[in-house]
Amino acid sequence: MSRFMNYAIQLAQMVDGQTGINPPVGSVVVKDGRIVGLGAHLKKGDKHAEVQALDMAGENAKDATIYVSLEPCTHHGSTPPCVNKIIEFGIRKVIYAVKDTTLASKGDEILKEAGIEVEFQFNENAAELYKDFFTAKRNSIPELTVKVSSSLDGKQATDSDESKWITNKEVKEDVYKLRHEHDAVLTGRKTIDADDPLYTTRVQDGKHPIRVILSKSGQIDFEQQLFADTASPIWIYTENENLKNQSNDKHIEIICLEKCDSTAILKDLYQRGIGKLLVEAGPNVTSQFLQSHHLDELILYLAPKLIGGSGKHQFYKTDQVIDLPEATQFEIVYSKLINQNLKLKLRKK
Amino acid sequence: MSRFMNYAIQLAQMVDGQTGINPPVGSVVVKDGRIVGLGAHLKKGDKHAEVQALDMAGENAKDATIYVSLEPCTHHGSTPPCVNKIIEFGIRKVIYAVKDTTLASKGDEILKEAGIEVEFQFNENAAELYKDFFTAKRNSIPELTVKVSSSLDGKQATDSDESKWITNKEVKEDVYKLRHEHDAVLTGRKTIDADDPLYTTRVQDGKHPIRVILSKSGQIDFEQQLFADTASPIWIYTENENLKNQSNDKHIEIICLEKCDSTAILKDLYQRGIGKLLVEAGPNVTSQFLQSHHLDELILYLAPKLIGGSGKHQFYKTDQVIDLPEATQFEIVYSKLINQNLKLKLRKK
Repeated sequence: MSRFMNYAIQLAQMVDGQTGINPPVGSVVVKDGRIVGLGAHLKKGDKHAEVQALDMAGENAKDATIYVSLEPCTHHGSTPPCVNKIIEFGIRKVIYAVKDTTLASKGDEILKEAGIEVEFQFNENAAELYKDFFTAKRNSIPELTVKVSSSLDGKQATDSDESKWITNKEVKEDVYKLRHEHDAVLTGRKTIDADDPLYTTRVQDGKHPIRVILSKSGQIDFEQQLFADTASPIWIYTENENLKNQSNDKHIEIICLEKCDSTAILKDLYQRGIGKLLVEAGPNVTSQFLQSHHLDELILYLAPKLIGGSGKHQFYKTDQVIDLPEATQFEIVYSKLINQNLKLKLRKK
Repeated sequence: MSRFMNYAIQLAQMVDGQTGINPPVGSVVVKDGRIVGLGAHLKKGDKHAEVQALDMAGENAKDATIYVSLEPCTHHGSTPPCVNKIIEFGIRKVIYAVKDTTLASKGDEILKEAGIEVEFQFNENAAELYKDFFTAKRNSIPELTVKVSSSLDGKQATDSDESKWITNKEVKEDVYKLRHEHDAVLTGRKTIDADDPLYTTRVQDGKHPIRVILSKSGQIDFEQQLFADTASPIWIYTENENLKNQSNDKHIEIICLEKCDSTAILKDLYQRGIGKLLVEAGPNVTSQFLQSHHLDELILYLAPKLIGGSGKHQFYKTDQVIDLPEATQFEIVYSKLINQNLKLKLRKK
């Protein structure tokens, strides 16, 4: 694998989770064996990665090679097409790692026509990075990850609603990182009532996700600490029109949908620029989103204990009985021990 | 760590699970840098490891060093004390890895009095091997391992009782090895009714565990294939006296206890020579034995799927609600991927 392509992908990974519904992209301009420019797409609306790198390179971009983690774009979006900029700066060769299947016209063809050498250098890490992005873009639905902390026997709390602490401090810190990597965190009203959590990221200089609360009935207690916290916006999805009049806080938005099912919420979130959503909720909301056919990933933290009881707070319950061959099936991406708690990263098959 | 002590421990590990209520022990006799004898305790009633190794060494044992995984015994049990044999054969030095805290008199003191050099060379692997043995011997209770195959959300079957297959073929093969390493496998009557399993070991030249069935009510259907299988004895624990008259098969034994709780069964099994018991059962029996304070290990196979439903077959249910700080706590000994299923070996803390 090329060293410079690796750098471009590393740059892309650095901004993963802060580009909203845009893909995280990294780029490196190389001339005579030296990096003369580098860039990453920092935020929807900001310059694309190639443009950042070319601007840094300036005149050095002439006859240079540009590495990009994703095929350069051809469309006028919030910024002009990157292919134009590449041609304009006199780049001799473009190397990219993943074909953008969502483009209307092909970036590499336009570049070739302009006399630029183009190389598609497939890279698995980059492909992995964009897999969910392509699906999300095609469906206009955010990339969906559900996070669950549970006992070995699949419970999020005891029958008497005790859930502090199932896992440990080190897991909590890992969850902060997860929040940092997502545009928004969604939970249910009951979890707010029970735990009054802030859903912020306690990572140094970390990014706080938008806090999304699902409350069909709209029985919200605005006295809770979460609602006083202005670290990031709070969006409340409800079917109750009256809720709109109950808060004047600028950072709180009430969103009324006729039907607050998972697909309707996901579609609406995407329209609002949420590209990556993390669900961190109690059994009901967790089960609801785990059943969504838009589910991409499950992050499961298992504490090495047994909770027992009747299973009131099993993290996964469904109204229908599902036949075993139809049970939701995952691929284990990795398992990792975090101070005697197990982290499983699972991709829905 | 000494090479020869390692060999002695390896020999012990080879016979782990076939020595009943006796400990698995390995021994190596070394003279002039060469192994002149080796042995292992093969079965309760058979020669001890040291005796095997000394007999193999014969006259070469004179002035030799003997390595033993466990401190040599001093008592007349089914065989004469090993210390006598060691003295008789003219061994110059004895090296052992674990002190036998269950001996009435100390083996190493008797040997030292006879003019033999004795070295206690602590070994962690050996200590691990005997930890549960010592507890078991002190309590006259078998070493207890519960094995569970479940979905990620802690279910052994769907609400419609479908459980074939939660895990996969490779897990099944791992379970055969587990069975081989235990003297007996215990299950409930309902599991026999539902799956009609044989509970044998399909390992080449493997040892079949004794099949133990728990049926308080004694509602046994002797027409099932298990009862026709004579690969190893079948013991049925019941509170129903009448069951005794219902089978004449030689390989089937009906054991009536006034109260078939887990402790009573464990005590009785130990008296019958069961040193290591594996529980492989449905939710009720599994939950019962997971609640036993005699539990040593939990082997959890997790299939990467979600089953949902109401949780009728959650593997762990209890009548009482347990406060979170009192929840059964484990240490994760290891986690291992078996063809996309996760094996967790957990020790009760």
